[in-house]
Formats: sequence, C-alpha cells, structure tokens
Amino acid sequence: MPTEERQKKLWGGRFSEAMDPTVERFSASIAFDQALAQYDLRGSVAHARMLGATGIIPAEDVDAIVAGLDEIGSEIEAGDFPFDPALEDIHMNVEARLTERIGPAAGRLHTGRSRNDQVATDLALYLKDAAKAARLGLATLRGVLIERSAEHVETVLPGYTHLQRAQPVRLAHHWLAFEQMLARDSGRFSDLAARINQAPLGSGAIAGSTLPLDRAHTAAALGFERPSANSMDSVASRDAALEFLAAAAISMIHLSRLAEELVLWSTAEFGFIELADAYSTGSSLMPQKKNPDVPELVRGKSGRVVGNLMALLTIVKGLPLTYNRDLQEDKEPIFDSAATLGDCLEVMAGALATLRVNVAGMGAAAQDPMLLATDLAEALVREAVPFREAHEVVGRVVAHCVEKDIDLRSLSHGDLQAFHPAFSAGSDALLSLERALEERSLPGGTARARVREALDVATAALANERATLNPEEQR
Amino acid sequence: MPTEERQKKLWGGRFSEAMDPTVERFSASIAFDQALAQYDLRGSVAHARMLGATGIIPAEDVDAIVAGLDEIGSEIEAGDFPFDPALEDIHMNVEARLTERIGPAAGRLHTGRSRNDQVATDLALYLKDAAKAARLGLATLRGVLIERSAEHVETVLPGYTHLQRAQPVRLAHHWLAFEQMLARDSGRFSDLAARINQAPLGSGAIAGSTLPLDRAHTAAALGFERPSANSMDSVASRDAALEFLAAAAISMIHLSRLAEELVLWSTAEFGFIELADAYSTGSSLMPQKKNPDVPELVRGKSGRVVGNLMALLTIVKGLPLTYNRDLQEDKEPIFDSAATLGDCLEVMAGALATLRVNVAGMGAAAQDPMLLATDLAEALVREAVPFREAHEVVGRVVAHCVEKDIDLRSLSHGDLQAFHPAFSAGSDALLSLERALEERSLPGGTARARVREALDVATAALANERATLNPEEQR
Amino acid sequence: MPTEERQKKLWGGRFSEAMDPTVERFSASIAFDQALAQYDLRGSVAHARMLGATGIIPAEDVDAIVAGLDEIGSEIEAGDFPFDPALEDIHMNVEARLTERIGPAAGRLHTGRSRNDQVATDLALYLKDAAKAARLGLATLRGVLIERSAEHVETVLPGYTHLQRAQPVRLAHHWLAFEQMLARDSGRFSDLAARINQAPLGSGAIAGSTLPLDRAHTAAALGFERPSANSMDSVASRDAALEFLAAAAISMIHLSRLAEELVLWSTAEFGFIELADAYSTGSSLMPQKKNPDVPELVRGKSGRVVGNLMALLTIVKGLPLTYNRDLQEDKEPIFDSAATLGDCLEVMAGALATLRVNVAGMGAAAQDPMLLATDLAEALVREAVPFREAHEVVGRVVAHCVEKDIDLRSLSHGDLQAFHPAFSAGSDALLSLERALEERSLPGGTARARVREALDVATAALANERATLNPEEQR
Amino acid sequence: MPTEERQKKLWGGRFSEAMDPTVERFSASIAFDQALAQYDLRGSVAHARMLGATGIIPAEDVDAIVAGLDEIGSEIEAGDFPFDPALEDIHMNVEARLTERIGPAAGRLHTGRSRNDQVATDLALYLKDAAKAARLGLATLRGVLIERSAEHVETVLPGYTHLQRAQPVRLAHHWLAFEQMLARDSGRFSDLAARINQAPLGSGAIAGSTLPLDRAHTAAALGFERPSANSMDSVASRDAALEFLAAAAISMIHLSRLAEELVLWSTAEFGFIELADAYSTGSSLMPQKKNPDVPELVRGKSGRVVGNLMALLTIVKGLPLTYNRDLQEDKEPIFDSAATLGDCLEVMAGALATLRVNVAGMGAAAQDPMLLATDLAEALVREAVPFREAHEVVGRVVAHCVEKDIDLRSLSHGDLQAFHPAFSAGSDALLSLERALEERSLPGGTARARVREALDVATAALANERATLNPEEQR
Repeated sequence: MPTEERQKKLWGGRFSEAMDPTVERFSASIAFDQALAQYDLRGSVAHARMLGATGIIPAEDVDAIVAGLDEIGSEIEAGDFPFDPALEDIHMNVEARLTERIGPAAGRLHTGRSRNDQVATDLALYLKDAAKAARLGLATLRGVLIERSAEHVETVLPGYTHLQRAQPVRLAHHWLAFEQMLARDSGRFSDLAARINQAPLGSGAIAGSTLPLDRAHTAAALGFERPSANSMDSVASRDAALEFLAAAAISMIHLSRLAEELVLWSTAEFGFIELADAYSTGSSLMPQKKNPDVPELVRGKSGRVVGNLMALLTIVKGLPLTYNRDLQEDKEPIFDSAATLGDCLEVMAGALATLRVNVAGMGAAAQDPMLLATDLAEALVREAVPFREAHEVVGRVVAHCVEKDIDLRSLSHGDLQAFHPAFSAGSDALLSLERALEERSLPGGTARARVREALDVATAALANERATLNPEEQR
Repeated sequence: MPTEERQKKLWGGRFSEAMDPTVERFSASIAFDQALAQYDLRGSVAHARMLGATGIIPAEDVDAIVAGLDEIGSEIEAGDFPFDPALEDIHMNVEARLTERIGPAAGRLHTGRSRNDQVATDLALYLKDAAKAARLGLATLRGVLIERSAEHVETVLPGYTHLQRAQPVRLAHHWLAFEQMLARDSGRFSDLAARINQAPLGSGAIAGSTLPLDRAHTAAALGFERPSANSMDSVASRDAALEFLAAAAISMIHLSRLAEELVLWSTAEFGFIELADAYSTGSSLMPQKKNPDVPELVRGKSGRVVGNLMALLTIVKGLPLTYNRDLQEDKEPIFDSAATLGDCLEVMAGALATLRVNVAGMGAAAQDPMLLATDLAEALVREAVPFREAHEVVGRVVAHCVEKDIDLRSLSHGDLQAFHPAFSAGSDALLSLERALEERSLPGGTARARVREALDVATAALANERATLNPEEQR
Repeated sequence: MPTEERQKKLWGGRFSEAMDPTVERFSASIAFDQALAQYDLRGSVAHARMLGATGIIPAEDVDAIVAGLDEIGSEIEAGDFPFDPALEDIHMNVEARLTERIGPAAGRLHTGRSRNDQVATDLALYLKDAAKAARLGLATLRGVLIERSAEHVETVLPGYTHLQRAQPVRLAHHWLAFEQMLARDSGRFSDLAARINQAPLGSGAIAGSTLPLDRAHTAAALGFERPSANSMDSVASRDAALEFLAAAAISMIHLSRLAEELVLWSTAEFGFIELADAYSTGSSLMPQKKNPDVPELVRGKSGRVVGNLMALLTIVKGLPLTYNRDLQEDKEPIFDSAATLGDCLEVMAGALATLRVNVAGMGAAAQDPMLLATDLAEALVREAVPFREAHEVVGRVVAHCVEKDIDLRSLSHGDLQAFHPAFSAGSDALLSLERALEERSLPGGTARARVREALDVATAALANERATLNPEEQR
Repeated sequence: MPTEERQKKLWGGRFSEAMDPTVERFSASIAFDQALAQYDLRGSVAHARMLGATGIIPAEDVDAIVAGLDEIGSEIEAGDFPFDPALEDIHMNVEARLTERIGPAAGRLHTGRSRNDQVATDLALYLKDAAKAARLGLATLRGVLIERSAEHVETVLPGYTHLQRAQPVRLAHHWLAFEQMLARDSGRFSDLAARINQAPLGSGAIAGSTLPLDRAHTAAALGFERPSANSMDSVASRDAALEFLAAAAISMIHLSRLAEELVLWSTAEFGFIELADAYSTGSSLMPQKKNPDVPELVRGKSGRVVGNLMALLTIVKGLPLTYNRDLQEDKEPIFDSAATLGDCLEVMAGALATLRVNVAGMGAAAQDPMLLATDLAEALVREAVPFREAHEVVGRVVAHCVEKDIDLRSLSHGDLQAFHPAFSAGSDALLSLERALEERSLPGGTARARVREALDVATAALANERATLNPEEQR
C-alpha cells in the first residue's frame, strides 16, 4: 500500500500534501516502540471487549478484532511482523495489519480512543512490568549477596572510611550493607508501581469521549484499580516515567559503588578477590592482563541511566498541557534504563556468585594494628576518661608508633601509662582483632551473632519479597 | 581559642602540622550545614540521655549536657551563635561551644558516636521534615487549585494538544489535572519519608561501638521505627537524599508546566488571564510592560532543582564503602532544592489565588468551531459508521471548510450528506459547545457533573492529607 | 569458528575458562561501534603502511593487509560484513575477518598497537568528521534562515520579552538572531576539531611501544598535526568527546528555542505561521488537527542530547588513569548526539524553508500601540527630560490608556501635556510603527538598512564558512 | 525610602499595586548578582561617557555620574554598600544609590539602555574575566605538575589500565598526562573568551534604541572587538555561559580523576604517596585516621559543577526570544562553578606540591614481573613471529607462571623454547625494568629522554601561556 494511501486512511482528509520522507523517518517511533507491542495488544483487546460489552460495536466485530489481535501477537512474537516506518508507530502498525487481516471491522477498534490515551495506557502497563522485573533482578542479586555473606561470616577485612582502613569488619557485614541498599531500591520500585493504579484508557485525546464507554471495565481488565480521575492529566503526565527513571538511576548508583569495590579489590594492591575468568576479559596487547571489565562496565553504565533521567526531565520541563509530541522521546530512555538495569543486576549477580574471595589476603590486611586504635580509646572511656580526652591521648600514642615504627599492640602497660595513667593494661591485653569484632555487638554491628541475625532477617525479607512477586510459585 | 588548639582537641594528637588555611576554608561546611543545627541538637540530646540511661556516663553530666544543648539551641535560634569556620562543621561548632559552657563534661557527649553516624542521623531527621514541608506546600497549592477550579466550573476554554486547539474543556477540569499531579508528588514525598525509618545513630564511624549503647532508645526518642540494620550502610548511603532530590525535581517539573501555561495565558495573543500587579514586574525601559516574572522564575528554577539531583548522583557514583568526604557535598543541593521547592509552591499558590481569569476571552476561543470536529465524527459513529471511516470523512469536511473559509457549524444536512450519507442532520444540529462538554461525561471527563464530582473527591483527599500532616489540628 | 577458539586467538592463553555468554552479550560493543568501521579501517591501513615503511613487517604482508582491509571496507559498505558479537568490537571483527581473508599475515597488523590507542584514534577521526558534519548542517540551516530573512525584511511583528509584546521588529531581524547563535555553534565545532590535532596511534596500551614505530608517519597519513605528546593521556582522555557533546547540547538548546517559537507561532492564538503539510502530522482522533510535530520533536530531542552529555560526564568522573572499560560507554552518546543534531538541523531547515508566513497576522499584532510606549518616553528624553522621569510619566500615560481603554496613539498634545509639559506634540505625531523601526538604526538594530547590512554580512560569513568546509567546491 | 516609592521610581506608573513581599524576596537577585558589581560599574561608566561624547546628555551630568559610580565602587569594595533586596538587583541598587549621591542627574544614566543589554554586558565581562582566572588557576596547577614531574623522572611505578598493573612508567610521565589535559582545558577557556567579542550594550531591551548612541565607543571602551551584530541575539542568548559551564565541568572531571588517584595512592594498600598533614584531616572517633579529605572534596565538587551545567541547559531549553526572566537563574551556577573550579585548582596545587612520594613503594610495585609480559611478546615479534601468535604464546607462559607461582623473569631459554622455538634467550636476559622503560622511546613515550623532552615542551608552553595571560609581567 503506498504511503499516501495509508496516511489518508489514518489521519483523514485534512491534509493535501504527503509527509516529507525525511520527516517520516525523523518522526517515526516504530523502531523503538515495538517494545510496547504486547502492552498495546493487551490494551486493544480490553478496549474491543468493552466496546462490545457496551454495545458500541457489534459482537462479531469484537470477535474478529480480538482474534486478529491474537494472531498479530503471535506474529510479533515469532518475529514475522512487518513493521513499517511509514506507519509511524506501534499503534498504527497494529491497526493497519489488523485491517489487512480482518477488513473494515478493524476500523471500529479505535472508536472512542486516541493514540494519546492508548500510549499512556501502554506505558503504564510497561512501567508496572518493568518495576516488577527490576524487583526480580534486585532479588536475584540480593540472594547472591546473602549467600556469599553466609559463606563469609568468619572472613574479616578492614572496613574503610575515606578509603583508609578504619575498623575490622566481617565480609558478611560489608556485603549485607549492599543488600540493604538494594532492598530499599526494591521498595522504590514497589511504591512507584503502586502509584500507577489509574487506567488512562477512556481519556481520549484530551477530554474523554462522547461515547458511552465503560472505563471501569477496561481498567479492571488491565489490572488497574480504577479509571483515571482526570482525562487531561492522563494524556499529559509522565511523572510515573520520571519516577521509574529516578529509581533506576539510584539503583545503578548503588551498583556502581559495588562495582567500584570489585574493581578496587581485584587490584594487585588490594588483592581481596579474583573474578572468575568467565567474568573477566584480557588485553589485545598485554598477555598477562585479566581485567575486571564486568564491574567497570556496570560502573560506566550508571552514567547512561543517569543521562536517561536527565533527558526526560529536560524533555518534560515547561510543556503546557496536554500531550505534546516531545513526549514521544520518553520511550527510549525508559526502555534503555530498564534493560540496562536488568543486565547489570544479572551480570553483577553472576560476577559476585563466581568470584573467589582471598580470605587470607583480607585477613592479613585486617591485622593492621591501627584498626584497633578506636578500641584503645574506648578502653580509656571504660575507665571513666571523657571520650574527647581519650581520643586525644590515643592520637598521640598512634603518632608515637608511626614515628618510631612500633606496632600499636606491642606497648607495655608502662608505655601506655606514660600517655595516660588510666590505662589498665598493656596494649596487647587491651587490643585483639577478635574482640574488636565481637565487642561491636550492637544491633546492626559486626559481631558474629549480630551478623548471623542480620543474615536471617535479610533472608526472610527476601523470601517475603519473592513471594509477593511470584505468588503462584508459593502455593 | 587558636585554631591549632582546637584541632588538637577534636582530632587528637595524630597530626603534627596545622591545616592549611585555604584548606580550612575549602573544607569547612559550617556555612551551609547550620541548617542542620536543630536536628543535630535533637540527636545529641537523645544520645546524651541514652548514655545516661545505660550508665555509660554519669547522670549529672547528662543533665549538664542537655541543659547546655538547650541553651545553644536558643542561642542559634536568636542568631547569636558564634559559628566558626575553623571548627569545620555544625557538629564541631556545637561541641566546642558546649565545652565553653559546661567544661569537660562536654567531652563525654561524643562517646560511642562518630560524625559519620551523627550526620547521617541529622540528615535523616532533616529529610523527614523536608518531606513533610513539601507536602504542606503542595497541599497549599492544591487547595488554591481546587478553590479556583470551584469558581470556574462554568468557564470554558479550548483544551490543547500540541498547543493546537483540540476540544473544549472546563477551566476547572484543566486545573484539576495539575491538582492530580501534585497529589502524586505528595505521595512520593510520603513514601520516601516512610522509607527513612531506621535510625543511623549507634553505627559509629563504620562498625558500631564496643560500648553498651542502647540503639533502640535513641531510635525511639528521635521518632524512628528502629535502629538501622547495618552500620556500614548507615554511614555510607545517601539514597534517601537522592530520592528526595528526585521527588523535588519531578514536582518542580510539574510546576514548570503550570508556570509555562501562566506565561502563555498572560500573552496578548492568548489573553486568558492577568496576573495581579503584586505578582508581576515591570520593565526598566519599556513603560507599558507587565511581565509574568513569577511563573518565569518558577519555570527557570526547575533547572536548578534538576541540577541539584544531577550533582548528587554524580557525587555518589562510584564511591566505595563507607563514608567518603565527597558526601559532604550532599547538603547544599538538598537544602537548596527543599527551599526552592517551598518558595515556588508558595509563590505559585499566591499567583494562582490572585490572578484574574478572562472568562470572556477563554469563552471566545472555545467557540472555535474546529473544536467540535471530533464530535462530528462521533455522530457518524453513532450511525454505525466505523470510526476510521468517520474520521476520514470529517477530515475532508474540515479541509473543505478551511479552504472555503466556512464555519463548520454552518453546513446543511445536504452539505454533510455530500460527504457521507449517514449524517443525520446539519452541523448546527449535530454540534454544540454545551453538548460537547456535557456529553464527555465519562468518569474523569469534562462534563459538569463529572467535574463537580472530581472537585469533591479532590477536596476530600486534600482534607485527608492535611489531617495526616497535622493530626493535632483536627482534634 | 567456535567462540572459544576465537577468544584464545585474540586474548591469548592467559584464560582457562570461556566467557559467560551473558557477559559476552553485555560487554560486546559491536552493535554500535560499527559506526567506527571506516575510521578503524583508515587507521589500520595507515598503521600497516607505517609498519612496512619502517621494515617492522614485510612489504608483501603490508600489501596483503591493505588489500584485505580495502575488501572489508567494501563489504561493510555493501552491508555484507558478518558482524559477530562474540568478537566483541569493531577492531576484533575486522581483524578476524582479515585473518579469514589473508591468513596469518593478518596477525602482523596489530604489531605495536593496542585496542586502547586504536579506539582513541578511531574516535578522534570520528569526532573531526562529526564536527565537520555539524558545521555543514548548521550552514544549511543558516542558509535557510538567511534566505527566509531576505524575503521578510518588510514583514513586521512584535518583538517579545517575557513573551509580552515589547517593541516592533522585522521578521528578518528576528530570524537573523538565530543565525548568529548557529554561527557561534559552528565556531565551537570548529574549535574542538582544531584541538583534536594529535594522533593517539603509537601510544600502545599505555606507554608506547618498544618497536621502532614511526608515529609521525601515521599522524600525517591520518591528517593529524603530530603524534600525541603523552601516551597515557592519549589512551585515558575523553575530553574531546565531552567537548563535542557539550557543543551539540548547546546547539540543540538553540534549536529548541527556535522550535518553541515555531510551535507558538503555529497556534490559533498567534497565527503567525503555518507549517507545510509535509512537515506536520494529524491526529488519530480529531480530524481537524494539524500539529507541529517536527518542531515539537526537535524541542524534545534537545533532552536526549543533554542526557548524552550528562551520561558521559558521569562516566568519566573519578576514573583513575589510564584506560578503564567504563570508557566503552562513550560511543553511544556520541553517535546518538551526532545523528540527532544532524537530523534536527535537516528537518528544521526543511520546516523553515517550507512554512508559510502570515504576513498580515504578524502585521496586525505589530499594530499594538503599546509597542510604541518606549518611543514616547524617548521623545521626552529628546526634550532633555531625564530618562527615569520620562519612563515614569509614560508609565502613567499607559496606565491611563489601559484603564480607560484608549489607544495610545490617540492622545492629543493637550492630553499628553497633562502628564508632562515637555511633550512637543500629540501621540499620533510622535508615534509611528514605521518610524519605530527606522529610528532603531544603530548597528545591530532593526532599521531596514541595518537589517540589509546584517543580511549581507551573514551571507558573506556563511559563504566563507562553506568555502572552508568544502575547499574543493570553490575552485 | 519606602519600597513602593522606589518601585514607582524605577518601573514607572504602569502598576497600581505594590509587589507581594514574598515575591519581592523570591525574585530579588541582589543576594548573588553583587558579584557583578564591578562589571556593572565599568559598563555604566562606559555608557555614561558615550552618552556625553555623543551629546545625548550634558557633560556635567557625565562627570557627576562617573564620579558617583567611582564612589559607589569604593563603597562596595569596602563592604559598606547598603544592598537592598527591595531594589531587586545590582543594577537597581547602583542606580538608586547614585540618585542618593548625585540627585536627578542619575536618572540620565539609563538613557538608551535596558537591564537586558546591561546584564548581558555585565555577564560577558564577567565570563571573560572568569575564563582568564580559570586559565591562571590551571597554569598554577600545571606548574606544580611540571615541577613535581621534574623531581620524579627517575621514579618508576606501574602504569595501570582497568586499575590492573599494565606496564612500568615514570611518575613524571604519569603526571604529565594530567598536565596535557589541563592544557587543553585552558585552550577551551581561551577559545570561549575569544568568542565573547561582541558588546551587547546598545541592544536595549530588544531592538536597540532610537537615540544616537555610539555603540562602537562603548564596545571599545569595554575591550570588545565590536558591537553585537543583532540586538535580539544579544539580550536572548546565553550560549557563552553554557560554554563556560561546560568547560568548567570538563576541567573538574579532569581534577576528579587526579583526585581519585590521590585517594587511591594514599591507601594503605597502594601506599604510593602521603598527603601533608596540612592537606589532610582526622577522625572525630578513630584516633589513627589521616584522611585525604582534600582530594575527596575535589572529586565530590565535580558533581556540583556538572549539576550547574545541567541546571542552565534545562533553564534555557525551549525559551522563545528574547529575554525571559528564567535567565536570571543563569548567575548562581556560573558564579558557583567559577569559584569552585578556582578553589579546587588551588587546593589541588597545594596538595600536590606538598605530598610526599613514596619512591620505594612505587618502585617495589613496579618490580612486578607481569609488567614485562608485553616485552616478552615483542621480543618474539622481533624474531619475526606475528604479533597475534606471540601474544598467544606469552599468554600461555603467563598462565603457567601464575599456576606454578613462578617469577616470569626466572624462565630459562629452554623453558621459553618449550613454548615457542623462536625465543632467543631466557626471560632474565629478555626482560628488564630499565629496558622496558628505555625501549619505550617513541615520541610521547616513557623513556627518560622522551620524558625530559616532554618536560621541556610543557615548560615552554606554560611559560607562553603565562606570558599571554599577564603580558605586562613579561616586560
């Protein structure tokens, strides 16, 4: 069918001139909004059934439309659908194909509907699914973090602030910190999906329809709580998309932090882990290289997801009501962020699951006596010395050890008393790595029992999350 | 007290050299983290009381500390507090001042605490309050939107898509679309505040404390649900801040859209509204000018709030655990976005409340017969013509009217039947502005009854939101 | 060839495990770095010839390599090249194909080269070409602006500040303002291309090579001024890419402003222009709609180009020297911004060239007497009244006219003298649209002669720019 | 003077209602545009003199105005100027003060001028100065990099790709890579300053003036090449500001990379450097800590500068011509980025100048035999083995050494020949750190002579840059 024919068919007789071919290519969205195909079909099926139930179109036309849409769905799934840029977008492509298949009855499908409420509905359905997919991906990575943590309750490494060794911590404690971040990420996706509870369908182009559509019918059929409360809001707003992009960006920032550590820990200097060969790459020039490309790429990809958020904020800024074509530009950032987050969660789960922990290397680093300096101060506090005074005293002890190159644990009782009379013993008696860990036994701390407790809590929370996401699997 | 003295006092004896004065200025945060003062004091009072309750420090010291902190609070409120950049930040300023006031007992306040968990606690308290303030500001603007909408149920204007006149809508319907956006914005702030439910205090610098602190005690005293589950997460994470900045940015994008319309509607060409003199400014050169500076500034300020989000995403990206000094840079964007959003909500509420609606001007624009073209197509659909065919036919009718400069409402039955035999009457009988509005009577539509219904629902929802925010006022 | 085989071939024997297939897909860049193919081939040809010229590899191998690369170039151009994701990137794909074609001699091509300096070279060549393409696209749009301006020296419309009518201007003057912006955009692209004057090739992976490569030879062959001054900088830096993305973003911001105006001017309310049908689209629901989709999309696409800049800034932030895999993520934003800018320049040129100016509509709006209020004040200044006093007086005259609904041009000499005795005549004599235009005859102003002068200057500058870009066409 | 009085004075009699006090605060820019004071005064002096020279205002008024402005300048410098938010902005504050000082003659200053062309001129002057300041700051840091490099030509450390040890490099070579980046940054600032060569003054509010101003006179007096070519462009455009923000962001990204390395190198694990006490801070809890706060803050502050760029891009996006009040929001990001970049350059120069290099620690790391694996491959290439084959062979040699925990340098000739017969000697003879460095003697490489050469070139380029920036100092 020639292009002009089609344009007439879909936009009506208002236009006397065909679209410029460059503009056709420039404005077509079919190259990317294919990703909405399954949602578009679901929306159309629900709409057609409602049109039948309300008697707006004949039952036999509904049957023909639904059957035709089903076949189109199969065609798309099989990769056989002839997407055509001249037909602009997914909606027009589907409708044109439906016309080829079932004839004029296809012309009744768009009754009481505009592409404006149609695409808003597609997008709402997409975002709800994408939020769920993100939560599933997060759950997988959280599962790996919990598993690896369970293996490494007894593995000790230095905890860092300012990338300086601060206090000894269990590796399980360290990785469970990331599990907490990801759990909150999941909460954000859950909240945003819950906020997408109003069906746009029935909002028409801007002000609803003069036809007796049953909006509650389509809303229920598509899994929304209710029809949207304001038709203009429905076709004009993209805050759900922005919220999704923001949640994805925050989650990617968390992954970039975890990735940064995997890169650091893979260095010769840290030597805390070794990534599996399957998650590393080599160099085209230097034969010895084994590079942590996977975490590097994850870290880098946080940039594109941040960029996607900035893109859509810029796009929506300052647009008057209601729909403006600028909003077509919402799709690529959304699809890209959803896919990127999904990929990154998957490869990070794989990288973490397969990396080798250098328990000895971590342990050796954790032997750094300076990690126990705080404990020396807290020993003075236990002797009723105000903390500030204790901190000052131990600062001087540390400076002395650094200057003389003395191990902090080798100071005799007398040595210490030269700094403060309240010291009750030599540093060897006062300081111990095991005690440093075990005495940090507050809730949320790194003592063995606390970490085991935290593992249990995290495991239960994750099981609960998975049950929510896949209720049928729990039966 | 000379700078070096103080530095020794607070960082201990590890250092032999004083800080470079440029660095002192460069790294000091006291110029902006003053905004945390009240939260810092609340956190310190709770911490001191807990230290007393657990017997870690003597009761009389607790009393002295609490009394001293109260006095400092009054001093700050009165603007008399001598903030000193040499003391770096709000925490150090308060502690130094406390020492001046109550002597060495002040040195016990920091027992079992680090600036890392202290600032995380301050920030959590700040964000919870800022989220509430945002909801209050949103509620005010929503209130104005509802009030002005209630006044303008009968005011009709063209609804726009692509900034082209599309279909007639009631002004109430138009403004309630924005009310819906703001209601969702409020939901985002509510969700993020609910997520900030774990008290960081007791996490220490990184791994908790060896002292028998009672974390549940301080958590409860400060209004958190429970102590945080992981000490490293507590001092390292800033996702709550990012979520706040994202929610603020999305809300500002909504305000920028409303602002854009106020600017557009104030033009000579639209002429739909006139801003009050009190919300306009003049020109230093052109004596006739009355400019919509308030909405222009609001629209512009969306940029800074988007920039703030970008800034913090960039800052946190790729930071390894746990605290890194980069995170000091979180505060200015947060404070600025909170203040900007608050200001913009306030001035937009004022501008909307005081603007004059040009009812006649809107009405005249709504008489544009082209706004009824969809209705002509839907008239054919009611005669069982498939929508696509009807759309095509009416497109040709419209083109005909444009070409011949004929009013769409002036076509006789015969004229119309020349385009399609199914037309049941002349356009005058088929088309009417009042009917165009009233027949759009689906839920969420622009019919009078639907808009009144929507006003009632919005009013109730807002009352409920206000009751949640200020429970005491409802008694 | 099975995947493992290939990996062994290219990374060597360091690895005992094959890459995880998900990782293979995740890390492959071939899907997008195909865009570098022609640059990669040019770089390889230059490198091979240099290896031959220096005697590092035999002349017959050079001949085979160059011939093979030529054939590969033809294959790629014809769309017949079998790109394979298992081969990661464009470099590996080309080399593997070369091996298939010419056998083991292909193994000599990568001598003294790493993918790090190779991709840096490809990117430098790409950016130089992309900058030139941007300048050509800008020149086309500037040309259209100049042409349309030449047609509309006599067309007058209100100039706006704050979107309020301010003073009358010629349409030519208005559009030439955009031409100036685009000329500066072109300057930015020119400057950045000039800064890309050092060839990275020969920097190896990080520190050059132990082989006696002739860096000056390849630099000259590829059109660079000289080899790069520091090998580590060469493989680590991406500031040229950032500068390109920034220049593209600034240019898109200019296009978004022009687009905003086309959208505004196409409204029923302004009615200043009508886009050609070929540059507009219709509505799937409303038969009367003719929407300015092209400028809307251009305005929206400014968002993606801004997002691309933000993405790469985030990616590069905080990366230590030298190459990190994060940098692979530089390509998609660059390619996307280059293509988007090119497309937008093209469609904007088309839209501007074909739009119909509503000369009468603009003229009618320019008759608004308030546009002359400044002239009334300047009339007083000519009578030696200080400007501030004149401004105040005319402000009161304007308020009087607004209140009484009087035309500013209808005030008698007596009426005016009631406001200030220095008025020398009635407003009719003092005010005239033609004079308002003609008296603004300062350089850069809107008087006829000045606009004609500006047209000449712009035309000459553009001709000069085109001559620079296509020197051969000028012979 | 009461607020209303003043408003009347400056905006004239068009308004009947005073500005809302919240709006007054909201819209005032005086809190930050004070930074423009000296530029505003310079612009006003030039304007007044031109008004005198052209006879538009009497010579005695010019003298009074210039003298008054001089006094105001002194007042501002001394911090005695009574800035008043009720007077909105710097322009109004200055003019009101001038009126207080010299009476009605002050009212002649604004003749033929608008705040639109006035602020555009102020900003242009500011940006030219800020660009020069950035170049001076960059020159200081480049100077330190060159000096420290000159000290460390003989200091060797591993060069890294993917943060994995790659090949040995000289520390001088490493730091000179940063010097190159900063030199390009300087080029960007230079280019953008050169592009700001047209004086906006005389553009009026939008269309110039009807008065016989001499634009060339003010342009020359203020150091511009010529008056601007288009008055509308002059008051509407902010691309120079965007370009400045982009250049600052790119430069901060470079600083963030250098900062990242200083943080990494300060770790216990790398141990390559120790920051001076004067450039470090301690911990309020952990007495042993010495934290690299300065580079951490610099790295973090890259976020705010990126955010500032994002803010202004968003602000300007989609604004129609000409001036819109949104543009007031350009100032804070510009001032903040200029100040932040200046501070960061200064503290980084100080930190680098004072840090202690751990030459032994770097040297020990550089002894890692794996750094020489490429050389082993290139040894085979010298025996005519194709590079790909050589790479594969050495990959297997490396894997063998890793598996058996053998030093790569300890393989006998026979050992190597078991991998490939072309090896001409044992690894001890083939590999040497000194040779690895010295044989990388291509231009831009890490061989001693090349690095010394690069030092000379950089030193000369910097001297040249400084001469350009401070021509008078060179006489």
